[in-house]
Amino acid sequence: MSTTSKATKLSIVTEKLNEQAIERIVMEAGGKGYTVFDGSGRGSHSTKTRDRASVVGAFSLVKIEVIIADRAVADDIVDQVSAGYFGDFSGIVYLEEVEILRREKF
Amino acid sequence: MSTTSKATKLSIVTEKLNEQAIERIVMEAGGKGYTVFDGSGRGSHSTKTRDRASVVGAFSLVKIEVIIADRAVADDIVDQVSAGYFGDFSGIVYLEEVEILRREKF
Amino acid sequence: MSTTSKATKLSIVTEKLNEQAIERIVMEAGGKGYTVFDGSGRGSHSTKTRDRASVVGAFSLVKIEVIIADRAVADDIVDQVSAGYFGDFSGIVYLEEVEILRREKF
Repeated sequence: MSTTSKATKLSIVTEKLNEQAIERIVMEAGGKGYTVFDGSGRGSHSTKTRDRASVVGAFSLVKIEVIIADRAVADDIVDQVSAGYFGDFSGIVYLEEVEILRREKF
Repeated sequence: MSTTSKATKLSIVTEKLNEQAIERIVMEAGGKGYTVFDGSGRGSHSTKTRDRASVVGAFSLVKIEVIIADRAVADDIVDQVSAGYFGDFSGIVYLEEVEILRREKF
Repeated sequence: MSTTSKATKLSIVTEKLNEQAIERIVMEAGGKGYTVFDGSGRGSHSTKTRDRASVVGAFSLVKIEVIIADRAVADDIVDQVSAGYFGDFSGIVYLEEVEILRREKF
């Protein structure tokens, strides 16, 4: 099999309205890409969305996944997202170790 | 960077009709939130859904993700979900180690 | 709690048009199931999709998740998918260690 190397997968689950701003942080901090999935839920990532849902009739979360070869870049994104979005808005962020191929892509 | 700590991410992939019952188990067992994603698939999580799909014309799975700081709570949820839903219904459950910020949220 | 064992979760993020061909590789290589989630994104998994999006007006990715007890089967799928789909098409693949119950299902 092709050689793999370790990298960090960063997952950010937040209200959909934060999506574009967080994607900008990811790319400006040095991320080389991301994938976004629509979801729903309950908890500290969505309390305020649920409140608003009673008004606007919709309630949605996104999970933004970013795989990053350089842990320092991942940490920088975590810090920026936490500082900028998880005070007034709701969200969670978590990190996992993954194995990747073609390290130069991440 | 902010200090991280270890936690357990529990993923339950099952037929959509089980979603609400499993969410109730998660919250009653001490989970502080969850995120849900719609999907499709093939395997031991969906065999029966596929059978039914030929009748009702739709076939859907959900993945319910729960991050839990206390492993004993995660184990309790796994036991309850396995006992209650993976006999008559179909589903898979798996656990992963993740790093989280703001441990008090999980 | 029920006994768990280690397994490999393989995630393939690629253009939706590759979905069926990759699912066939997964099952023929010995995978016992998979789950598929629709998403969107930016990066080496989607550059060409984005180009095409300007023509056809839609842009979509899928993430195909496969949990496999036998690492050699996972490696075989990675090799086949990388060789067959990540040249002309775009995609990323990564592996994670997970804990599973009911090992005979994977």
